[in-house]
Amino acid sequence: MAESLVLSIDGMGGDAAPDIVVEGVEIAARVRPEAHFQIHGDAARLTAILERFPRAKAASSIVAAEKSIGMEVKPAQALRQGKGSSLWNAVAAVENGQAQAVVSAGNTGAYMAIAMFRLRTMEGVHRPALAARWPAANGGFVVMLDAGANVQADGEQLVEFAIMGEAFQRAVSGKEKPSVALLNVGAEDQKGHEEIRAAAGLIRDAGVELDFRGFVEGDDISKGTVDVVVTDGFTGNIALKTGEGTARLIGQLLREALTSSPLAKLGAAIAYPALAKLRKRMDPGSFNGAVFLGLNGLVVKSHGGANGPGFASAIEVAAKLASSHYREEIARNLQRLAQAEAAARAQA
Amino acid sequence: MAESLVLSIDGMGGDAAPDIVVEGVEIAARVRPEAHFQIHGDAARLTAILERFPRAKAASSIVAAEKSIGMEVKPAQALRQGKGSSLWNAVAAVENGQAQAVVSAGNTGAYMAIAMFRLRTMEGVHRPALAARWPAANGGFVVMLDAGANVQADGEQLVEFAIMGEAFQRAVSGKEKPSVALLNVGAEDQKGHEEIRAAAGLIRDAGVELDFRGFVEGDDISKGTVDVVVTDGFTGNIALKTGEGTARLIGQLLREALTSSPLAKLGAAIAYPALAKLRKRMDPGSFNGAVFLGLNGLVVKSHGGANGPGFASAIEVAAKLASSHYREEIARNLQRLAQAEAAARAQA
Repeated sequence: MAESLVLSIDGMGGDAAPDIVVEGVEIAARVRPEAHFQIHGDAARLTAILERFPRAKAASSIVAAEKSIGMEVKPAQALRQGKGSSLWNAVAAVENGQAQAVVSAGNTGAYMAIAMFRLRTMEGVHRPALAARWPAANGGFVVMLDAGANVQADGEQLVEFAIMGEAFQRAVSGKEKPSVALLNVGAEDQKGHEEIRAAAGLIRDAGVELDFRGFVEGDDISKGTVDVVVTDGFTGNIALKTGEGTARLIGQLLREALTSSPLAKLGAAIAYPALAKLRKRMDPGSFNGAVFLGLNGLVVKSHGGANGPGFASAIEVAAKLASSHYREEIARNLQRLAQAEAAARAQA
Repeated sequence: MAESLVLSIDGMGGDAAPDIVVEGVEIAARVRPEAHFQIHGDAARLTAILERFPRAKAASSIVAAEKSIGMEVKPAQALRQGKGSSLWNAVAAVENGQAQAVVSAGNTGAYMAIAMFRLRTMEGVHRPALAARWPAANGGFVVMLDAGANVQADGEQLVEFAIMGEAFQRAVSGKEKPSVALLNVGAEDQKGHEEIRAAAGLIRDAGVELDFRGFVEGDDISKGTVDVVVTDGFTGNIALKTGEGTARLIGQLLREALTSSPLAKLGAAIAYPALAKLRKRMDPGSFNGAVFLGLNGLVVKSHGGANGPGFASAIEVAAKLASSHYREEIARNLQRLAQAEAAARAQA
């Protein structure tokens, strides 16, 4: 077992758990025949569902958990009362080395709190960050972080986010040298908050190994101007949700337009294969799997409303991270950053 | 002339000026037969173009300006060297009472700098804000501010933005009591930056006349959950551009999908009337006309890339503001805010 890939799965997290979780494992087991899945949750329900999914059944073991954490539970409450829950146990499996990564579609706040409490932040990381993937014009995806783990971030933290986001993009896309930029209100050096300018200075001076391109603006995210867009969790959360809201509005208006008359319906029916492909291209499920970066363990968050294929996308992110050199790369760059900071302090 | 509507127009601002400016005036003159347009710029060129636009010619006077400010000029440079330019003179016409509002599609930074320098901020306003309109699911539009005039805003400034944005929404849409919320990363009271929580407290305590709904998130902008979304200029600029970028990406992918095969092209041709209506509905031109709120004078900014109809939309925003009680409403609410702040200080 030591050499193989073991993924810890919260069987009970998400709007349609445990069904979509097991369906996701079924799909993932096809893509990753080398993986073993440790599914935490209600043993009786999971056993019954696994009967319908033969590949998942063959590749999984069930670890019974006495309870699960609801979507309305606050982070502090989850920390006090969450012990023994499927989410807690799924995280603990990474902590005690039984699994290389954990995936859950459950309560985000509770998940982040439990993961931080059990796994702790990596050495050299002040605060973990939530990294999301975003469809880009070039057909790939952009990594944006922090998508909402921290409301604020100083210059040094933004550089840590840049380092983690770059390694994450490489692990998932296979791009050798992903480009990185800081999100700002203009491309000029003197623009934006002090923290952003400080971060740009640090990246340039610290000798971290990054293909750093300076500042990008909000519309550069969808353009895919760079592979990794770095910002604080407040701005990142609002950018992500604003983009999602815009996409949903246009989708709704397009559906309305294409059902507004018999002629429109006919046209839509004829163009159906092309429209279905577009829909698939923009499907949030394909980009499912945000990652909570900077902990001593790989923690992947699926959207709570994900379906089976969407959950499988999140599992695949976990599998790619677990098979990569993500942690070593981050550790190396973080060390460079720490040395540069120490040198700057010594000089001051 | 004293009672009629006079609008001051920068004839030379924008990517395709002066042609689109005069075309915009032609359209606006049809909608607003009571308006007179004072067009500032290159007299010879403007005279020649006006020959092609009879309504614009009849409703306009040309004020010769010896130069114009390019798109690359920095704000500080514009202040030092901009005197005598079409932009400067167009703003000055509002300052000296010749016109009730000014419209330009020129250099945003230069425009804001000159407008602030010449018109100064209204009493009770710490910093002006740029307010943008955003298409919403309900068919109307949402006002979002600050779209980028200030990188930061404290609680009191956010309340001023709320007061100005609400009056602007009423002036343009005619809604009697627009709803207002602060942009945040969650709806709960304890979420987000300190300034946002301070602003929420101030609005509730100060007795300002606002239909205040608390906090909304990024996806609420397109949903049209409220009529006015208030945030600082950094977040607002990034939200606006992220939304624009997402819309542009989907538009591009939709075009690609509908030209990807003969069948898709046929379907698109049959559904053309519906798709054309959708295109019109999402046309950024219909929402053109950001307003620089909080100055002693009405200052409307057209997108630099606007076409004639887009520029006409910006003129219509200026006309509606000039015909409204916008300034009196703001003054009244700002006074309530000032009294509440004075009372709070006296108590402290």
